[in-house]
Amino acid sequence: MAAENFTVRGFKAAAVNSGIRGKERLDLALIVSDKPASVAGVFTTSLVKAAPVLLDMERCKSGKAQVILVNSGIANACTGEEGMRLARLTTAMAADALDIAPELVQVCSTGIIGQQLELACFQRGIPKAAQTLSADGLGDVAQAIMTTDTFRKITERTVLIDGKPVKLLGMCKGAGMIMPNMATMLSFILTDAKIEHDLLQSLLKKAVARTFNSITVDGDTSTNDTVLLMANGLAEHPPIVEDRPEALHAFAGALEELCKELALMIVRDGEGATKLVTIRVQGAASEAQADQAARTVANSNLVKTAFFGEDANWGRIIAALGRSGAQFDQQKVDIAFDDVFMVKHGLGQGAEVEARATAVLKKPEFVVTVDLHAGEASKDIHTCDFSIDYVKINADYRS
Amino acid sequence: MAAENFTVRGFKAAAVNSGIRGKERLDLALIVSDKPASVAGVFTTSLVKAAPVLLDMERCKSGKAQVILVNSGIANACTGEEGMRLARLTTAMAADALDIAPELVQVCSTGIIGQQLELACFQRGIPKAAQTLSADGLGDVAQAIMTTDTFRKITERTVLIDGKPVKLLGMCKGAGMIMPNMATMLSFILTDAKIEHDLLQSLLKKAVARTFNSITVDGDTSTNDTVLLMANGLAEHPPIVEDRPEALHAFAGALEELCKELALMIVRDGEGATKLVTIRVQGAASEAQADQAARTVANSNLVKTAFFGEDANWGRIIAALGRSGAQFDQQKVDIAFDDVFMVKHGLGQGAEVEARATAVLKKPEFVVTVDLHAGEASKDIHTCDFSIDYVKINADYRS
Repeated sequence: MAAENFTVRGFKAAAVNSGIRGKERLDLALIVSDKPASVAGVFTTSLVKAAPVLLDMERCKSGKAQVILVNSGIANACTGEEGMRLARLTTAMAADALDIAPELVQVCSTGIIGQQLELACFQRGIPKAAQTLSADGLGDVAQAIMTTDTFRKITERTVLIDGKPVKLLGMCKGAGMIMPNMATMLSFILTDAKIEHDLLQSLLKKAVARTFNSITVDGDTSTNDTVLLMANGLAEHPPIVEDRPEALHAFAGALEELCKELALMIVRDGEGATKLVTIRVQGAASEAQADQAARTVANSNLVKTAFFGEDANWGRIIAALGRSGAQFDQQKVDIAFDDVFMVKHGLGQGAEVEARATAVLKKPEFVVTVDLHAGEASKDIHTCDFSIDYVKINADYRS
Repeated sequence: MAAENFTVRGFKAAAVNSGIRGKERLDLALIVSDKPASVAGVFTTSLVKAAPVLLDMERCKSGKAQVILVNSGIANACTGEEGMRLARLTTAMAADALDIAPELVQVCSTGIIGQQLELACFQRGIPKAAQTLSADGLGDVAQAIMTTDTFRKITERTVLIDGKPVKLLGMCKGAGMIMPNMATMLSFILTDAKIEHDLLQSLLKKAVARTFNSITVDGDTSTNDTVLLMANGLAEHPPIVEDRPEALHAFAGALEELCKELALMIVRDGEGATKLVTIRVQGAASEAQADQAARTVANSNLVKTAFFGEDANWGRIIAALGRSGAQFDQQKVDIAFDDVFMVKHGLGQGAEVEARATAVLKKPEFVVTVDLHAGEASKDIHTCDFSIDYVKINADYRS
């Protein structure tokens, strides 16, 4: 995938070193649409929102955007009035360099909380990026937004709408401080589809709920979580609108698939992670209880360290279910590792079954299915194991 | 402390090796009161309750108990009908060996979830323990109930009530699967005080809420959490009753102090822990929000790994506060490490202050105070750091 050239008609991009993160690393980038695009955004639900999040939320309301300015290294979170001033000022600098209205510039920052942006880096980096924009610069942007990520996360889909090809390209970053609502991360999705802001916003919200907001690495939610989607309308199909369900579903399906692929990349790259585990709770009394139960298991340190130890420790899973708040009868619970039913009616199924379950845990990806037999609702949460390296990474890295 | 002889008038105890945990380790114990004692119990709030918890909850209602039978190694949780049968049967065996009514026997188990007790171990261990009961056997019981604990947890208080000495002795176990409600643990408290069941129960509940239920090691709640308090009435004071506030407060104060000392022992011995950290949230809009905010910070893996890394990373603290659900204005938040105010009005106070805060983090015990400036409510939660050893311990140990 790294060798591919990721492009979308009508979008250019560039990433540069601006000095925020030393002298070598790409740390500042621009994504620019040839013309104003419909924009949709989904942002952190944390009460503590970074300055760029507050600014983007405001600007998204207009329904149009043309530029994304992004830096890594400093999150511009918990930076007060000065942080807001710098967020506005840097978007004005980008607008100036590109000769575009400042209100059409979205800005994202990721990195250390509590530090102010250094203006000199933006004064250096923005013109440099503006001068080097190119259609195949998007891969570099995916590189520039990485923090504790170990690989860049970018992918694309092409979908036929009314017989015309429509491209969706997505990138994201995130490895720690990940428990969606939003996934602690940045993601940018670009498409040449023709679609208006309101509909785009509602499709993005739905897709995010089922993808980015269904993953967890460490149960922490960031101050900067942002997904931005720009649709510049350069594809040749008639506009996607509510009363054209076929076109709508084709686009929505591709968008959700793209988001899911990106979201799972984040979990696979979870800090210190060695395994991707899907916690599937079914038979719950309500959607909310299914979510609660799956999320509690997916965030339990004891469950996650057992995955790391490749220990088919269903006792920790049932203990987590017990404190989750979901209602069920412990004598009805079934638990399976992939297709190995290790627990039936709340009871372990013996050493031979355990040996087969242990073999499942040695796989890099597997599904833990819990059936509560208390109703019809179900929920998948994607998580990772919890390794020694998670602690090493987070005892050292300043986020 | 290890050299002390822990005794309470009218109580005898013994711990033996019964074979549950190999051939050497103390793994089964009896605590016996010379006469039926007033009993109080507080149990796990998990929906998934172990068989001994269900049995004890039922028996506690009578208000009287004379014996505690306890084993480590197997939790007798998620063991269905057979588990209940074995819990009843083993108490009957103890009752028989001691010539005491079975309804007066409480039983506790701690260890692996999902395995059945081996009856042969109890057939071997119970008579052996019954024959070796002695007034100074309580220290051995504290030893026998340890699982991943690295030191035994036992302490005592003497309080004067109406001029007469009253002894309170407490022991507990617990190091992982610890987030109270109840603290994931067992605790036995013995006293010679004269006090009836109903009052004893209400005093224990209050004391536990402010002590064991205000600690966390890993945010997981166990299926077996139990605190049992037996009062045999052998002290010489007039009975402690509601309308004798002085006696009541003296006893309640000593009980809470004892519980707090035991609870903090658990946090100090948290799996892999190197630091005891108190998260003090003040200025919250309500008690519930203070609890929510303090508990979210105290359970954040990112906050806890930063403590381990001795990194005064207030960004992670404010990020945890932001997702906690507590209401506040991020521009009013103050955060101090002991007496070093690192954040004022939501803003960091610079490198010199950070250096002093970092020095605080190098201490084995410190307090993180968060003032939300949103109201009058406050809450202390006691937690520990999150180290590489936590992962090592839990990737290997089967709980």
